[in-house]
Amino acid sequence: MKVLDDYPVVIELPVVWGEMDAFNHVNNIIYFRYFESARIAYVEQTGFMEYMDKTGIGPILAHTECRFKLPLNYPDTISVGASVTELKEDRCKMLYAIASHATGKIVAEGSGTIVCFDYKNNCKAPLPDEVRDRIERIQSR
Amino acid sequence: MKVLDDYPVVIELPVVWGEMDAFNHVNNIIYFRYFESARIAYVEQTGFMEYMDKTGIGPILAHTECRFKLPLNYPDTISVGASVTELKEDRCKMLYAIASHATGKIVAEGSGTIVCFDYKNNCKAPLPDEVRDRIERIQSR
Amino acid sequence: MKVLDDYPVVIELPVVWGEMDAFNHVNNIIYFRYFESARIAYVEQTGFMEYMDKTGIGPILAHTECRFKLPLNYPDTISVGASVTELKEDRCKMLYAIASHATGKIVAEGSGTIVCFDYKNNCKAPLPDEVRDRIERIQSR
Amino acid sequence: MKVLDDYPVVIELPVVWGEMDAFNHVNNIIYFRYFESARIAYVEQTGFMEYMDKTGIGPILAHTECRFKLPLNYPDTISVGASVTELKEDRCKMLYAIASHATGKIVAEGSGTIVCFDYKNNCKAPLPDEVRDRIERIQSR
Repeated sequence: MKVLDDYPVVIELPVVWGEMDAFNHVNNIIYFRYFESARIAYVEQTGFMEYMDKTGIGPILAHTECRFKLPLNYPDTISVGASVTELKEDRCKMLYAIASHATGKIVAEGSGTIVCFDYKNNCKAPLPDEVRDRIERIQSR
Repeated sequence: MKVLDDYPVVIELPVVWGEMDAFNHVNNIIYFRYFESARIAYVEQTGFMEYMDKTGIGPILAHTECRFKLPLNYPDTISVGASVTELKEDRCKMLYAIASHATGKIVAEGSGTIVCFDYKNNCKAPLPDEVRDRIERIQSR
Repeated sequence: MKVLDDYPVVIELPVVWGEMDAFNHVNNIIYFRYFESARIAYVEQTGFMEYMDKTGIGPILAHTECRFKLPLNYPDTISVGASVTELKEDRCKMLYAIASHATGKIVAEGSGTIVCFDYKNNCKAPLPDEVRDRIERIQSR
Repeated sequence: MKVLDDYPVVIELPVVWGEMDAFNHVNNIIYFRYFESARIAYVEQTGFMEYMDKTGIGPILAHTECRFKLPLNYPDTISVGASVTELKEDRCKMLYAIASHATGKIVAEGSGTIVCFDYKNNCKAPLPDEVRDRIERIQSR
């Protein structure tokens, strides 16, 4: 979708009826599930999950937020974009946007701060160079 | 609660607002989450989880069902009972009932068939004697 | 999918990472969400929701069950089939099956008993003829 | 709990097994469900829901965020605190904190921006005086 042109990774998901709450809109926590699905799709392209399996060093979500702009309802299909905007020593920031196919509009925007974590030694770690390289390649597409 | 007297394991849970769907009642899949929480509480008392950690042989859910008798709404608190009624060579059947504190009534009843599974060899296995003994002790309380 | 040929209504859904539980498989309650999505898709084709908006008489889920045959994991896509097998005075029974695109196999089968309910008078009601006709037409496709 | 002394509204919730994801920790979206439950508990004390039923003017969530500080696991019980820190013409900001009973520590902090919305005219509205008064009374407890 055109409104997601700035996002190098975009996934498509159906809105399902059961995601609506008693206010007849998709419940707020579901937006974070959508973000998570886009984050996982992005991270898979970086090879970070395989790196974690080998080394015990992998991603951890430190912070996330969502700005709700328009209500979302069943039936609809959404596209969810993910883009890394800040790439630091031990972390990166990922932006998200959710677009409704029914209206063509962005219904929510948000971000996630992903920290590189050494699960064995229980402390932060530098982002591996190979993951950093892949992120840069994904972003330059 | 008196209506759950036949259930040796009973847990208490709050109904939370976000469990309601667009029909303004607790959504049907949430009842299975309630059943699951009671099942886990029961299984913990049998030592089956520790047994699985040691041997790779543990429980797997093969079938579950729920009969919805009355709607459930926020705010309310529920008690969920679990009781094993059939104890066979490689499986057992667990009955569940959910009672509303607001009305004192049973709002749903169901069951789960739990099979003993050898995760290493990917096949059914006999229920370990120590787990079987504990189930019998729990049921005779 | 061929394995769902007997189901006149079939929907397609992605498995998302967050649907897995601590056992690394899609959690059991999610299967009922899949069933619900197929049920809603079927019911929409019968005009029953519009009928309910006009008359206050609509569907209510009285019982549902699921037989788990094979584990389901992310990443995968599923097709979920729905078919009405028993059409009685005030209720019908709907069968469900979930097929994994990764393996081509049925991973779960289940059913739901849908009762026709008069929400205004708080009692069961006969299935409206127009809904019954539409179900028969859907099933004879 | 002492660590939540600054929060005038505090609710207690059990962590349930099914809230954990494939990383064996409570999944990130569940923290927003916990926040929501505390938000609803707070809003109920302000009379805003009854006001909405009468007038069509009620709360809407415009933004929310969570900072994850420590992992959370089953079994545990949590207390979730809510406190309004900014009270403006048409909105307020609510802070949240989640404390683990197992460790006595804050595991996550967050916030929500709640806007007063005129659902009939589809636009923002000033916070009703009676709701504003009740918030001030709750905060001065």
